[in-house]
Amino acid sequence: MPKSKYFQPVDPKIYPRFEGIRTFMRLPFQTDLAEVDFAIVGVPFDTGATYRVGARFGPHGIRSESMLLRPFNPDLDIGIFEHCAGVDYGDIPVTPGYLPESHAQIEQAATKIFAEKVTPVFLGGDHSISLPLLRALHAVYDRVALIHFDSHTDVHPGYFGSNKDMHGTPFRRAVEEKLIDVSRSIQIGLRGSTYDATGRRESTDLGFQIITAPELHDIGVRAALDVIRQRVGAGPAYLSFDIDFCDPAFAPGTGTPEIGGFSSAQSQQLVRGLAGIHFIGFDLVEVIPAYDSAGITCLLAANLVHEFLSLIALQHARVP
Amino acid sequence: MPKSKYFQPVDPKIYPRFEGIRTFMRLPFQTDLAEVDFAIVGVPFDTGATYRVGARFGPHGIRSESMLLRPFNPDLDIGIFEHCAGVDYGDIPVTPGYLPESHAQIEQAATKIFAEKVTPVFLGGDHSISLPLLRALHAVYDRVALIHFDSHTDVHPGYFGSNKDMHGTPFRRAVEEKLIDVSRSIQIGLRGSTYDATGRRESTDLGFQIITAPELHDIGVRAALDVIRQRVGAGPAYLSFDIDFCDPAFAPGTGTPEIGGFSSAQSQQLVRGLAGIHFIGFDLVEVIPAYDSAGITCLLAANLVHEFLSLIALQHARVP
Amino acid sequence: MPKSKYFQPVDPKIYPRFEGIRTFMRLPFQTDLAEVDFAIVGVPFDTGATYRVGARFGPHGIRSESMLLRPFNPDLDIGIFEHCAGVDYGDIPVTPGYLPESHAQIEQAATKIFAEKVTPVFLGGDHSISLPLLRALHAVYDRVALIHFDSHTDVHPGYFGSNKDMHGTPFRRAVEEKLIDVSRSIQIGLRGSTYDATGRRESTDLGFQIITAPELHDIGVRAALDVIRQRVGAGPAYLSFDIDFCDPAFAPGTGTPEIGGFSSAQSQQLVRGLAGIHFIGFDLVEVIPAYDSAGITCLLAANLVHEFLSLIALQHARVP
Amino acid sequence: MPKSKYFQPVDPKIYPRFEGIRTFMRLPFQTDLAEVDFAIVGVPFDTGATYRVGARFGPHGIRSESMLLRPFNPDLDIGIFEHCAGVDYGDIPVTPGYLPESHAQIEQAATKIFAEKVTPVFLGGDHSISLPLLRALHAVYDRVALIHFDSHTDVHPGYFGSNKDMHGTPFRRAVEEKLIDVSRSIQIGLRGSTYDATGRRESTDLGFQIITAPELHDIGVRAALDVIRQRVGAGPAYLSFDIDFCDPAFAPGTGTPEIGGFSSAQSQQLVRGLAGIHFIGFDLVEVIPAYDSAGITCLLAANLVHEFLSLIALQHARVP
Amino acid sequence: MPKSKYFQPVDPKIYPRFEGIRTFMRLPFQTDLAEVDFAIVGVPFDTGATYRVGARFGPHGIRSESMLLRPFNPDLDIGIFEHCAGVDYGDIPVTPGYLPESHAQIEQAATKIFAEKVTPVFLGGDHSISLPLLRALHAVYDRVALIHFDSHTDVHPGYFGSNKDMHGTPFRRAVEEKLIDVSRSIQIGLRGSTYDATGRRESTDLGFQIITAPELHDIGVRAALDVIRQRVGAGPAYLSFDIDFCDPAFAPGTGTPEIGGFSSAQSQQLVRGLAGIHFIGFDLVEVIPAYDSAGITCLLAANLVHEFLSLIALQHARVP
Amino acid sequence: MPKSKYFQPVDPKIYPRFEGIRTFMRLPFQTDLAEVDFAIVGVPFDTGATYRVGARFGPHGIRSESMLLRPFNPDLDIGIFEHCAGVDYGDIPVTPGYLPESHAQIEQAATKIFAEKVTPVFLGGDHSISLPLLRALHAVYDRVALIHFDSHTDVHPGYFGSNKDMHGTPFRRAVEEKLIDVSRSIQIGLRGSTYDATGRRESTDLGFQIITAPELHDIGVRAALDVIRQRVGAGPAYLSFDIDFCDPAFAPGTGTPEIGGFSSAQSQQLVRGLAGIHFIGFDLVEVIPAYDSAGITCLLAANLVHEFLSLIALQHARVP
Repeated sequence: MPKSKYFQPVDPKIYPRFEGIRTFMRLPFQTDLAEVDFAIVGVPFDTGATYRVGARFGPHGIRSESMLLRPFNPDLDIGIFEHCAGVDYGDIPVTPGYLPESHAQIEQAATKIFAEKVTPVFLGGDHSISLPLLRALHAVYDRVALIHFDSHTDVHPGYFGSNKDMHGTPFRRAVEEKLIDVSRSIQIGLRGSTYDATGRRESTDLGFQIITAPELHDIGVRAALDVIRQRVGAGPAYLSFDIDFCDPAFAPGTGTPEIGGFSSAQSQQLVRGLAGIHFIGFDLVEVIPAYDSAGITCLLAANLVHEFLSLIALQHARVP
Repeated sequence: MPKSKYFQPVDPKIYPRFEGIRTFMRLPFQTDLAEVDFAIVGVPFDTGATYRVGARFGPHGIRSESMLLRPFNPDLDIGIFEHCAGVDYGDIPVTPGYLPESHAQIEQAATKIFAEKVTPVFLGGDHSISLPLLRALHAVYDRVALIHFDSHTDVHPGYFGSNKDMHGTPFRRAVEEKLIDVSRSIQIGLRGSTYDATGRRESTDLGFQIITAPELHDIGVRAALDVIRQRVGAGPAYLSFDIDFCDPAFAPGTGTPEIGGFSSAQSQQLVRGLAGIHFIGFDLVEVIPAYDSAGITCLLAANLVHEFLSLIALQHARVP
Repeated sequence: MPKSKYFQPVDPKIYPRFEGIRTFMRLPFQTDLAEVDFAIVGVPFDTGATYRVGARFGPHGIRSESMLLRPFNPDLDIGIFEHCAGVDYGDIPVTPGYLPESHAQIEQAATKIFAEKVTPVFLGGDHSISLPLLRALHAVYDRVALIHFDSHTDVHPGYFGSNKDMHGTPFRRAVEEKLIDVSRSIQIGLRGSTYDATGRRESTDLGFQIITAPELHDIGVRAALDVIRQRVGAGPAYLSFDIDFCDPAFAPGTGTPEIGGFSSAQSQQLVRGLAGIHFIGFDLVEVIPAYDSAGITCLLAANLVHEFLSLIALQHARVP
Repeated sequence: MPKSKYFQPVDPKIYPRFEGIRTFMRLPFQTDLAEVDFAIVGVPFDTGATYRVGARFGPHGIRSESMLLRPFNPDLDIGIFEHCAGVDYGDIPVTPGYLPESHAQIEQAATKIFAEKVTPVFLGGDHSISLPLLRALHAVYDRVALIHFDSHTDVHPGYFGSNKDMHGTPFRRAVEEKLIDVSRSIQIGLRGSTYDATGRRESTDLGFQIITAPELHDIGVRAALDVIRQRVGAGPAYLSFDIDFCDPAFAPGTGTPEIGGFSSAQSQQLVRGLAGIHFIGFDLVEVIPAYDSAGITCLLAANLVHEFLSLIALQHARVP
Repeated sequence: MPKSKYFQPVDPKIYPRFEGIRTFMRLPFQTDLAEVDFAIVGVPFDTGATYRVGARFGPHGIRSESMLLRPFNPDLDIGIFEHCAGVDYGDIPVTPGYLPESHAQIEQAATKIFAEKVTPVFLGGDHSISLPLLRALHAVYDRVALIHFDSHTDVHPGYFGSNKDMHGTPFRRAVEEKLIDVSRSIQIGLRGSTYDATGRRESTDLGFQIITAPELHDIGVRAALDVIRQRVGAGPAYLSFDIDFCDPAFAPGTGTPEIGGFSSAQSQQLVRGLAGIHFIGFDLVEVIPAYDSAGITCLLAANLVHEFLSLIALQHARVP
Repeated sequence: MPKSKYFQPVDPKIYPRFEGIRTFMRLPFQTDLAEVDFAIVGVPFDTGATYRVGARFGPHGIRSESMLLRPFNPDLDIGIFEHCAGVDYGDIPVTPGYLPESHAQIEQAATKIFAEKVTPVFLGGDHSISLPLLRALHAVYDRVALIHFDSHTDVHPGYFGSNKDMHGTPFRRAVEEKLIDVSRSIQIGLRGSTYDATGRRESTDLGFQIITAPELHDIGVRAALDVIRQRVGAGPAYLSFDIDFCDPAFAPGTGTPEIGGFSSAQSQQLVRGLAGIHFIGFDLVEVIPAYDSAGITCLLAANLVHEFLSLIALQHARVP
């Protein structure tokens, strides 16, 4: 049962899908989370980007293309709003150009959300935002596994001759700060050229299990899902999805695209296949509308969020 | 004094302009107009388009680019929200594909808004929406002059071998139904090839004064403003602005573009020069984001709406 | 043997492919079908679209990209014009903004074409056109199976609080009006979120067999072809191909794109694999050039039409 | 009186403007010129381009955007088809990659057209095509003045260490071969950086009068028209219009754009102001759709051709 | 006389302009400035942007479109490389995401360049870079006037509830730090909505003279040039050109576009009209290729830089 | 060991990847090949294109997107610059519009490069360039196998009623001139409609082995690699990669796109799988940036070049 039956999208059979203010799926825009099961939360911060920049417009882009979504997921056989109440929380205030200040703002706002025991889906923003999000998570939850879809490991020690944080560093920090249970964590989809031979070893040295892109192409989605599920187990998990996991043909609108990636169908199957894992939060990052073509990246991201919401609804359905 | 000090945009000095849910200027989204002076109202209907179609996404496009706008208009020396309270009303429900039904929906919704004595700014939608809007206006106000910026007269008798209503017919109907005071009405910017020699005579035969594009290029903005002001006089007026008044270089994102048009600076000067006329409503129509390039049409439209709001604020400032 | 050897494309080895008036493949533009085996027929109607609109430019877009096509299909080993005479019939006149009137115009024009026993390939337009096309088909042929590639079932009862026809309703009407032999009909590629749990059951309740997108991904093209062929059998068939069957990466230029779709290679293999089925007509719908990127959707559509023509030629080759 | 009343565009009040095969204005496509006053002739050759290339798609692009044009020109007060019969002749065959061969093909085809005493409007292609066109003209007419709108002089001696012909050389050759009456010829709109100080002197040394862009900005359209008319006098004239005369904001889709150019309104006024000059041919060149944005360059070109046709109609109206 | 005859662009009459590595105008890429008169210097920093971001790709975009430029400026009658030797210095290293560090890097690199007495043309980057550039300038030169073309004053005290530096603050800091001679400085083109009534007063309060956009539209380019020249006098000057001075139709590719702006012709005339002023440096900022359409913004910027180089050459011509 | 440790890219951990002059991977730009193992060489010639044109900008486009590449290839486990020294040689001068002259220029320049025993990677340009490149190769090496990835055979006898060379003819000439060892050569990926039934037989008649696209889809990448490796054997090989091997969804920016193609992942796997073959040269052709969307074609091409460089490095690693 949803906490409230009021927090549902506008009915698209009455009010055409091109109409209205573009919150995610035209959910109510509100920051009061008292009667809410999940919240869509924008984190429009992109100062951590090392190449293409503009993910500050990611939340807007994803909301804009979310209008096409309908409330029932026939492939997971679940009506999202039959089991959950949800809102669009709007965006967390950030200070563009100032990473430490913004990370503090994000951590503070996210901590409040986690503390209310609603399941957040954060829309980035560059991947640096996952660090303050995991700090917030850790303030409320303990020993959470990370399931990380990405073409990059994002565990660099730092950039530009220093140990500065950027969007390639959050998960090293997360391990260093013990924000996640690395022994149950896994990175999937790694590919692309690296600075040197240590590239992917950095992840395994930190304790992550990894499935590289060539491995995933080789073993296929089902076998990969078995590996992920075995790794994560029954404990709580957080899913971080970098849209560059998908191939540039499917997701051109991103900051550091890598060829050799995955289709929208594969991505969707992977997310759906995680049903049963106990999720307490999600982020979807690195969407840059200025580099999108025909809105396909934002549409893909909006649909992946729809799958996240379906997973949340399934959890609620199981534990009524 | 604004009716209420609460209905203002989010403060862009605190909350960066790329953040938040994209209502117009990030105004509150609400349909209760009790304490409101003006309302932004989307009318996403485009079934009346005879060539390019897609103005149903016009309100969304204009709202998206309105984020850049700040509350003070230095050229008219007016702070909009020091004198007005305003909201984004969202969109009027329409039935795509069904013109008579949608026109009835638009008329009904707009009549309610006019009846509350707030000044609406309607965002189209194709130009056919001006007919139900003027019907609604006429239900509340009498003898209103029409100031119509457009490259087309929009007074065709009908299309496709019948007297069907489309976006080229609204102002003939408005005269036939006596919705406006045609003796005080004027059309500005007419140009482009016509079906036959009667083209522009149709307007003058109906009683409109006209300033063609070549005439406006010839006499200039100031002389044109004198003509308009003299025509309209002190009585109430409604402004209908078809974005194809502007040249395709400035407004590519529209349905029936005509070369030989006007710049954004000229358009802005013309609207500003109408200060002092007693406006009771505005519409801005025919923005099609799918044909825009780099968002410049939507940005231009958003700025013209900002000038409309400044005119409203000036009226309030004069009559406190 | 083709009915006439005159109705062939311009020779691309003499006249470069970027030259000339853009009929489909630079076929003769003519409406006299006396000596013709197949006809390309545009149906530029899009008033039935519920979200993105602009499929009225679909026929133009597909024709524009058809210039690259050459007359021989090496993978089906057939020279189209060695067995068929074909023309580009131009577009059926429609009345934009007026669905019932336009459907009547389409039905009347299509009935004439079917009555001449040429095989038409209709280029949409939105999917609502399939209803009058099937009415026309039914006026001439009986008990025709429908093979329907689409991400949506298009069997909604109606939209917007009424039983109004739109592009999501044609196949419910087709069953209700007994225009097709539903017991031999099949829908392939269904996916995407639905309004509620009845989503796909609506199709099977009406009597359709369905292959959902996840099922097709699972069983593969060859197994699917076996299913289709078994369902359709030896009787006459009509193929309706909604371009949103393909993934947005391959076909961004469409009105209601759904992720998780199929590649151009899979689509091509599926169509080719239908060789042997007795086709009496085809439509390809929902191409919207305004949302295309780099023309890839129109190019894909033009190539699929080339495969349709190859199937027609194979039929003629078998029955000389 | 038009030579025939049959060669007119499809009626846009019956058959919507988005319908049908895209000849110019939906004129009949035919190469028989017996009963024809003017012909639209594509010359899709671009091997002479020195920088951006792709003007081979110019005729297609211009035809595609010509659908919006209606038959009456209210600003010149002339109904084109009340005085003229016209057709779309299609494209002259060329051999891409082979300039001398293609120039021969163009000269031969154009000579036949001029010999039939129809007034051609050639759609380029790069500016090198003007050389064979003027050769053809000269085979039929003598002492023709050239009115040349362009940002470049196109009188270079040759390129790349040789005297090779490219799109920067045609008018030097035309003078050397005495194809035009240079003493009555004029170039308007010259601007942009040059290879060296001889840049514009090359034109005046050859005998051309010139009006540079800064001069035209300075004296204005009316004064420029007086200069042009005085220069050209009562004798026959040929108009060559390079779309890069217009500023890149108005005509981005071209090969060697130069800033500091002219608006669509100025261009239109200039062409209209040439009414009364005795024209025997026109070309409009250097439109490259691949670099266009939102079709505005092609639309501008189509409208300028409409003005050319209006000038032809005015000539016919004067000499019935 | 140029310091060296070696530092010239590749000869475009031999080596076609589409060939080669894209330094500015294909100048030699070198950081040794010993025999050099001017240097093109990229400053790809955009962390100071408050809305759209991506000016880090500005130097690349401008270089890419500079290929069309030729060495002679016929309107100023000057051959750039007959009087100057120039190089492309490449880009100053910056630390994206870290404003104070990057500003220090920029200041240090620019100081070295100024100290070598070459005239730099800096390509931004967002406008925040002008602050470290003026600090560098001030380390070498004293009492330099600022000529600032922009739609914004860029003299805000700070952003986001603090006194943080961003691209809207550099010229307040420049005055506070006494980096420029404000009594001889002027801002031209100011327009757009402001946060409050103090908007433009902030500039005049700091000591700047201003010419707003409406004033410039009103008095025209020539009168404005008289005002600028009188203000600046005979002393040294630095020119900072924000591309948003131009209207979005001419320069869509920028971060905070404002309608009501200026054409490329007006911008070019304004820069040319500054000949005679004693310039010791230039910057051109806020070009964002990701928002450009058809490269027109980058092309405009490259041409304006060409005018800057012509001004430098004229200075060298006067003082041989 | 690389011949020199100086010819390496700029370090992206110090100097951000968006900075600097865009040579390939920011390698040194130099034509002295004395201490160099491989060279990136642009061949910006596109006069041989029969449909879309503009591959002259291919080298620039590929270089622009190569900035994202890092020096280590983790999937082949090789650090390119630990084993090789490389430079960006710039572009070979060509004469646009003049095919025989340009082919002579290309042959001459390429012969010099092959003679220096560096391994070149040529960036096209249209596919006609492979003919002079193979002539140059043949001047230095004997009995080289051709591995040719393409959707087209490129063995037409000639075009447009003559035996003229264009981009569809190079490999027929190469066989006729005995430039390659056709008995060890293979073409992979063939698909698309053909002019007639001889289409693909032309290749096998000339002696090529072929793997068509449907065959490759059927047997998969691994089986195809076995076929290729067996065909080529231990002797020297040249790889020619036409980007239209990839599907238009992955590589829209090309001249004659064909649906039914391959993904970036498949292309990458195929190239990687050639490790062990003895390569003496590579070309990558038919990239046209003007038709790209969001740069994905150029990015794909740059990454494939990165794989070529990795193959070169592996050769050097094996033979130190």
